[in-house]
Formats: sequence, structure tokens, C-alpha cells
Amino acid sequence: MIVIGGGVIGLAVAWRLAQRGAGVVVLERDEPGRGASHVAAGMLAPVSEADPREEPLLRLGIASAQAYPGFAAAVQEASGLDPGYLRCGTLIAARDRDEAEALERELEIRTRFGLGVRRLRPTEARRLEPALSPTLRAALEVADDHAVDPRKLTAALLVALRHLGVEVRAGTEVVELALGRRQTRRAVRLRDGRRLEGDAVVVAAGVWSAELPGLPPEARVPLRPVKGQIMRLRDPAGPRLMTRALRLPGAYLVPRGDGRYVLGATVEERGFDTTITAGAMFELLRDAVELVPGIGELVIEEVLAGLRPGTPDNAPVIGAGAVAGLHWATGHYRHGILLAPITAELTAMAVLDGTSSPLGEPFSPGRFEGRAPLRAAVRSGAR
Amino acid sequence: MIVIGGGVIGLAVAWRLAQRGAGVVVLERDEPGRGASHVAAGMLAPVSEADPREEPLLRLGIASAQAYPGFAAAVQEASGLDPGYLRCGTLIAARDRDEAEALERELEIRTRFGLGVRRLRPTEARRLEPALSPTLRAALEVADDHAVDPRKLTAALLVALRHLGVEVRAGTEVVELALGRRQTRRAVRLRDGRRLEGDAVVVAAGVWSAELPGLPPEARVPLRPVKGQIMRLRDPAGPRLMTRALRLPGAYLVPRGDGRYVLGATVEERGFDTTITAGAMFELLRDAVELVPGIGELVIEEVLAGLRPGTPDNAPVIGAGAVAGLHWATGHYRHGILLAPITAELTAMAVLDGTSSPLGEPFSPGRFEGRAPLRAAVRSGAR
Repeated sequence: MIVIGGGVIGLAVAWRLAQRGAGVVVLERDEPGRGASHVAAGMLAPVSEADPREEPLLRLGIASAQAYPGFAAAVQEASGLDPGYLRCGTLIAARDRDEAEALERELEIRTRFGLGVRRLRPTEARRLEPALSPTLRAALEVADDHAVDPRKLTAALLVALRHLGVEVRAGTEVVELALGRRQTRRAVRLRDGRRLEGDAVVVAAGVWSAELPGLPPEARVPLRPVKGQIMRLRDPAGPRLMTRALRLPGAYLVPRGDGRYVLGATVEERGFDTTITAGAMFELLRDAVELVPGIGELVIEEVLAGLRPGTPDNAPVIGAGAVAGLHWATGHYRHGILLAPITAELTAMAVLDGTSSPLGEPFSPGRFEGRAPLRAAVRSGAR
Repeated sequence: MIVIGGGVIGLAVAWRLAQRGAGVVVLERDEPGRGASHVAAGMLAPVSEADPREEPLLRLGIASAQAYPGFAAAVQEASGLDPGYLRCGTLIAARDRDEAEALERELEIRTRFGLGVRRLRPTEARRLEPALSPTLRAALEVADDHAVDPRKLTAALLVALRHLGVEVRAGTEVVELALGRRQTRRAVRLRDGRRLEGDAVVVAAGVWSAELPGLPPEARVPLRPVKGQIMRLRDPAGPRLMTRALRLPGAYLVPRGDGRYVLGATVEERGFDTTITAGAMFELLRDAVELVPGIGELVIEEVLAGLRPGTPDNAPVIGAGAVAGLHWATGHYRHGILLAPITAELTAMAVLDGTSSPLGEPFSPGRFEGRAPLRAAVRSGAR
């Protein structure tokens, strides 16, 4: 099996395939884990980060969040490394009446899905997290929404893969997919001229998946980059500011448990641009400092931007596409870290068993078949 | 002559000494121009950046600003490099009534010193700089306050020094000053064990000047680090946002003329800490974005912090100290770039002619003689 892409999705898929006995190679153009996975904050909050009108995506996210403890434990056991799963819980904060009303809707959805959630008065919230400002208007405590450190997770997955004999080839660019319908074996041609053959190809190259040369037009999935800028912060005084993840409209603050935090994230449609802009940093800080003034004391360790892979409906593409033997595992938009375990499971089912599950069917690449890729449309000047 | 310190002050002093025929060597612990000079924005605004109650410092700053065109031209001629002197002019902006009243005081001081300044109505200011927000309350146009790019200036000075045969030794740390009263020659011992002798030693090592080992206690000048954080920005659309330097209470924006800007600067008493903090970036951006919303579109190229050398009265120390042959050129606080030409001139007079001028006399190191260095006092637990 050939997996194209060494981000958290590609690595998780490769690991699941290898666990089930398949021979796997991962081809990564740059360094594994250095794309969107390197920038992601790792919040595991299926309800709050999904559009509640998209119930299939909600169900997928909830299933993946529930799979996370087992997934993280298995990665830890296989690698001997801490995959950075932190049972921190989450507070969702509202600053005014509109935001408080939105919290009530989240409460209703969570209750409907049987997920634990508790409405807090501002004083209760501030008892749990004394760093919260008195301007807090309302809050929800979501005790089971946790976080994972995507950098630790990809590092642990790489070791787990090595232990299973999976080769992860860094700096290996695929310059052509050779997917003729008559062949039973799929092939890829690499930048160095070599050719690799396999029973199946899984495309997990994030937003670059749609750019792979040799993809037949009818098999293309339309993807667009959705830029996210974040700030990585460190408290010189250690882990004292916040113990829970904090979500507020427009920003979130995810603790790493060691005094480090990720403050994210913008959602910008700016093509393949990954510059850091003054306005983005200002808006993230403004929203966060208002609710947690102590953020002002934190040291900025890093500011960076990543590109989320977005499909026309912002839901992932998982499963077999229009060409036999070609599988998709991309388009995860803002949910790639959360959805890694369930994507790995569904992809392994599709590749090894030829089956799908009701959970995964709404995310079949078939829903986009025949649609022009978004970028190509822009390039050709179409309106 | 031995000059300790390869920042803009040390390089300017060395150049002036060499221009006047002296043999000079510059000893720099790290890389020349990589300390506070690397972080400085380079605004040349003697009135606005000095305390108007400190008339001697005002006069010194005005003299140095007036020397800048000639200084920059001479550096350019000697080096063949652009020293980054930009005749951009300056707008001073006020957002509310208090700030507008402070502008009136600046107007009065500038008029008293015969400096060109013009009161602008908000509509006039916005005609000059359309990027200014309608929240502008009042403004002054200071057509003769310009800016220099300290990185270009130090680079050009280094070449000018080389052309005059001055050796600038990077990575050369002075581990001992040997300044016995009986010797007529001054000596320094270096980290590599070698010894250098000269007729005079000029200490231009910024805030680290007071830390030089071997300084007799009575010759020490008390210095403390005053942290400044800045943000270097770039406009992908080129030089269109602001053509003039902009000063507002709490921040300034200095154009480089090529679409780059420096947004500065915090003034923090935090010891030798040079971390970048979320609160500082937030405050700089908040103040600047309010008056120039277009700053939000700029790309952040760099964020960095430097340490200004501050004396107890925040005025520089220039001239001969308590030990014969030991000269000071440091303590420039927020004015090091502005004061480089006049400091070089005054230091060369003191070193080569043994004379001083009324302009420089208020800044003699003698005013601090016998006072404990600020840091040593903190270290020993004194109150």
C-alpha cells in the first residue's frame, strides 16, 4: 500500500493498515508532520468545531473523539513515546448575550448526543479557572473535550510505524500517478525517476492532494487552502494560567500541560499564502486577552500559519474514488487532528476489506465526482 | 585607540577617531551591529523623544539630528553603501483631548528651539497620509524629523571603517580592563588570553558597559537594561501605506521607504530579559491599528527585543571618566541612533584633544562617580 502524505492523517492511516498486516510505504514530499499538522492546536472538540446542521460530520467527530483515548494509548504502547493526549477538559466562554445564547444551542446539541456538558455561572467558571476575567458572561464546562499535541502525536506515530516495518520516505515527491483502469496494480513515479507499485494508493496529502499530477479529471476532489494563523505561547512561571482548553468565539487557547499554550486560529481564504499578518495576531490576542488578561504575560515562542484542506462542503473525503485502487483521506478542514483515528479506521476498512460503514458513507469522494477542482477553476479564469 | 563595542555608537566613534588620523581597533563580543542597534527603529526625533524638562539632552539631540545629513552623506561616500537615511518627515498624532494637549506642548517646545513644525487639522493630516483613521483628533507635521535604518547604517559604517584600515574584531570579548593609574598605556585582556594596549579605551558596550571586568569601582557608571520590543512589518503591496514616520503616545511606525516598517516600542524594566511577550505585541498593535487600520494587512517579518542602556537620569554618559585614558560612550537609552554622530564627535574631541564642549559637559561620567552600579546593588540585595 502506498500512502501519499506524511501528516497526521497519512501516518495514522499507514499505521492502521500496517497493524492489520498490510505492507505500507509512506511518501512525504517534505518532512513528516511539518504541514498543517505542525501548526494545528489539537483541540478535540467534535461538537463545538462542527456545524451542528451537518449531523453526519458531528457523528464522525464524536466517534473519533471517543476513539482517541484508545488510539493514543495504542500509539504510546507501540512507540514508547507520549503522544501528547491531555485530558484537560474544555471551557466554552461567552462574553455577551449573543455569545451566551450560542452556548445554549451548544448545550442542547451536546445533550441530544448524550455528551457531558454543564452550564456554569461566571463565578463557578472563575473558580475553576481563576485566570478568566470578570467580563465573562456565561460558560459551559465540557469535561470530556480534551486536546492532543499534534507534534508529539506525529513523532510517536513515526516511531510506531518504524516498529512495524513501515518505511516513511521524507523528501519524496510524487510526480505522477499512473492509475490506468486496466492495471490491477497502481503505480506512482517519484521525482528521482523511480517507480513504485502497490495494490492501492491512499492520497492523504492535505490541500496538495488535488494537485497530484496524473489524477484523472473524473477522480479529482476539489480542495482549497484555508489559512490558519496561530501563536505558540509559553508561561515562564510554569503551568499555572489555565488547566482547561478555552474556547471563545473567534479564538481558542489550548494548554499543553507544561506551561505552553496554542492560541488559534484564523480562518482565511487567501490561496496558498502562509504569511503571518499583523491583523491576525492582533485579533487573536485581542479576543483572548479580553477573557484571559494573563495571556499578556506569556512569551511568544512561535507564530505560524498552516493551510487546512477544504472541500466545497468543508467535510472530509474518505474512501474509494472513481478510479479502482485510489483512496482518499483528506479534506479534513479544521478537524484533521480530531478525525485522524476514525479516518484511519474507515480507510483501512475500504482498502483492505472493500467495505464502508454508515458513519463514513456521507464522506465518499463520489459526492464531488466530475466537479472541477477549485484551484484549476481559478487558474483558468472561470467565474 | 581601543573601542569596546561594535554597535552604532562604537562604530561611529571608531570612524570619527580614524577620520581624524588615530589608529583604532573595535572589539565586539558578538557580531557588530547585532545588539540594541539591530532592534532600534531609527527615528530621528530629538524633541518628541526627549523629556522637555531636560534641556541639555534636548540640545544634544537637536545638534545630532542637525548633524545627521552630513554624517549620512559622509558614511555613504566613505563606504559606497546607502546608510539608510530617509527624509520621510514625521506626523505626530493625537487620538483624544489629552493627547491633543500634549501636542500643543510639543509645538511650543519646537517653536522655542526654532524647529519647523505645523499644526494640522485631522482632514489635512489625512490628506497627507490617507491611511490615517478618522479617529484622528489632531496632528503635528514635523517636516524635518526623519529616520535612518540602523541596520544599513552599521553595515555602511563597517565598510567605511575597513576602508580606513580600522580592524573590527567580531567575537572578541574583553575579560579584563587593566587601567592601573601609574601606566600611561591602557590595556585590555581578551577571552583568548591575548592582551591589547592603547593610548585610550572607549567603552561603548551599551548596557553591558558596566559589567566590564576590571573597571575600578570609582570609575563605574550605573547602567540598567530597558527592554524594548518591536515588530518589523512588510507591505506585500509595496510602499503605499505611510510615507512619513508616525508617532503616537505609546507607539511609533517608522517607514523604510520600500514597504517595510518598524512598529515600536515597549519600554520595560525587566532586567536582561529579551523574550517576546504576547502583551507587548498586543499593545503595540492595538495602538497602531486604531490610528492606521491598514497595518492589519501587513506581514510580520520579525519580532524582537533589545536592551537600551539606561543611566539613573536616562541621559548618556559621554567623555573621560575617573581613570585617565578611559572614556565612556554609552547610556543612550532610547536615543542611541539619534545621538551617534554627536557622540562620535564629542568622544573624538575628548580622546584626541582632551577638550570638552558645553554641549557635552552635562553628560560627563563624573556625575555618577562613586555611585554603585545599579545591577550590583540589586545583586547584593541592597534596597
